[in-house]
Amino acid sequence: MTTTPTRSLPAALETGRAILGPSLRDAVRAHLGPEMARIADYHFGWADAAGRPTGSWGGKMVRPTLALLSARAAGAAVADGLPAAVAVELVHDFSLLHDDIMDGDETRRGRATAWTVFGVPSAVLAGDALLTAATSALLTAPAAGARSATVSLMTATRRMIDGQAADVGFERRDDVTPAECLRMAGDKTGALLGCACSLGAELVGAGRTLVAGLGAFGEHIGLAFQLVDDLLGIWGDPASTGKQVGADLRVRKKSLPVVAALDAPGTDELRSLYRRPEPLTERDVRRVTDLVERAGGRDWARDEAARRLAAAEECLAAAGIPDDVCGEFLEIAGFVVGRRL
Amino acid sequence: MTTTPTRSLPAALETGRAILGPSLRDAVRAHLGPEMARIADYHFGWADAAGRPTGSWGGKMVRPTLALLSARAAGAAVADGLPAAVAVELVHDFSLLHDDIMDGDETRRGRATAWTVFGVPSAVLAGDALLTAATSALLTAPAAGARSATVSLMTATRRMIDGQAADVGFERRDDVTPAECLRMAGDKTGALLGCACSLGAELVGAGRTLVAGLGAFGEHIGLAFQLVDDLLGIWGDPASTGKQVGADLRVRKKSLPVVAALDAPGTDELRSLYRRPEPLTERDVRRVTDLVERAGGRDWARDEAARRLAAAEECLAAAGIPDDVCGEFLEIAGFVVGRRL
Repeated sequence: MTTTPTRSLPAALETGRAILGPSLRDAVRAHLGPEMARIADYHFGWADAAGRPTGSWGGKMVRPTLALLSARAAGAAVADGLPAAVAVELVHDFSLLHDDIMDGDETRRGRATAWTVFGVPSAVLAGDALLTAATSALLTAPAAGARSATVSLMTATRRMIDGQAADVGFERRDDVTPAECLRMAGDKTGALLGCACSLGAELVGAGRTLVAGLGAFGEHIGLAFQLVDDLLGIWGDPASTGKQVGADLRVRKKSLPVVAALDAPGTDELRSLYRRPEPLTERDVRRVTDLVERAGGRDWARDEAARRLAAAEECLAAAGIPDDVCGEFLEIAGFVVGRRL
Repeated sequence: MTTTPTRSLPAALETGRAILGPSLRDAVRAHLGPEMARIADYHFGWADAAGRPTGSWGGKMVRPTLALLSARAAGAAVADGLPAAVAVELVHDFSLLHDDIMDGDETRRGRATAWTVFGVPSAVLAGDALLTAATSALLTAPAAGARSATVSLMTATRRMIDGQAADVGFERRDDVTPAECLRMAGDKTGALLGCACSLGAELVGAGRTLVAGLGAFGEHIGLAFQLVDDLLGIWGDPASTGKQVGADLRVRKKSLPVVAALDAPGTDELRSLYRRPEPLTERDVRRVTDLVERAGGRDWARDEAARRLAAAEECLAAAGIPDDVCGEFLEIAGFVVGRRL
């Protein structure tokens, strides 16, 4: 997830980061060999390419902070959720390392991606090592739900991989339906966020209903995030998104508003512009933007995002968790999703 | 592992294959999404690139057959070892999918590698999916040792990744010691073979001594295999190895006999030939072959392989397992290692 660099972090995330940085680093030391740890250190931003410490504790830690909250939601201490928090962040970073290779992305978080610094083979291996480390860290946790939580983490990871594979496959198709696209986004983005929101609770042995409710909350938030992200990829203000205007359209990304528009009747012009092999001009991009909006792609995505947010809040209200924990969940959800449309 | 295509399989492997093919396929169906299963089906040789069934059950299944044997070694039924067998094969195939990408290899088992057929992104994801599936298959097994076996499998996987990373790193160095090289081979090849030989026993709840003894047997066999493989890469008969004469030397591979030779005193000529950026001529390859032998690289590797085999047999004898199981372990070990030098 990317957010605008100018916004300050919610208090819950600030607290999470302070606890999580050292725990994540300990897990990397415990579960990775020195060669792989060197690449992980760089990827997390703890060290530069030469291995010199940067003094930084890395990213925003959204997912692991949610995992800590979910342990508290189940009445456990924050520290009891740490193995879940560490594991979910390691899985997230495994996916980032491999996604950057697949997408050929050369920068992440304002720094050169690991594969550009260490080469593709080492970056593939480092991703593999983080996935292995995630499993080991969670499964060896001295907690009642370690086995069950690890099974859930693997299921979420499988869905994330399936979602990424579907996304890769969509590029070669022009008959993707909004339902398929929502499912893909649910797998690619929702599954791990749902897991993050419930894994701490599952680890400390919470009942199925609570685990399922927190998981559903996170999945809805994940989808709402993706819908908003896709809207910003077309109509976002470049000054706050950090992307070019119409960046997603320029590369003909099959994002949710576009797929919804293509699915509407009478969109031959849009379809032919999106199929054309030639690069789109500025004028084409403006025309596509207009056509997607006229076909209802923008309204549909906004409405769907609002429905998902409402559904998320309902799930959370039904979970019956302490008010302060509920408030922090909502604060982070707002931070993740609540960007200017 | 590669073997000469002309040799027939030992009886234990034939039996193993008959049981394992369907179980492995069931696991792929249960733990992978359809898109990823399509690539796995191709990789295992069950389907062609268009998804049409080939009627084949895939490779030799050395590792999973060893895992089944290890369940029998602990007094359990063959079927009780199946989740361990499936998991260890899935990890092996995860590593093959990613190794082929890293090494740029275009064929495996006489067929085009998955990345050449489905593209690098899909093949990276399919490898990730197999690793996730391995964990899920083992961890959800209804067996006393499922958690502990999964931890062991992750530890072996971590070592395999570290070994591969060390191997990648060796290409950029010319001061690799034989001890480092043995350690790398132990991680890259020995760790998963040791795990295969003990995982079934661990899954069915065998005691630590038996699990450790079987693991040590497999690690020694793995190293003996690697030493013999490296010897064949220099002095093997192309008719039976399927490789060019001196293939490993031509690409200046830091194989065990070469590293041992480079470590001996007075090898300036060998060192400068191995450092030279230009391609080696036929004559150079013959000269390097001769220099490695004169510096004692061939003898050292032969002696080390013999020591590892003897150590493996000692470990097995000390494990106190049934004679028939012991016989089958030795039969497979002989098949894996016992190729003409």
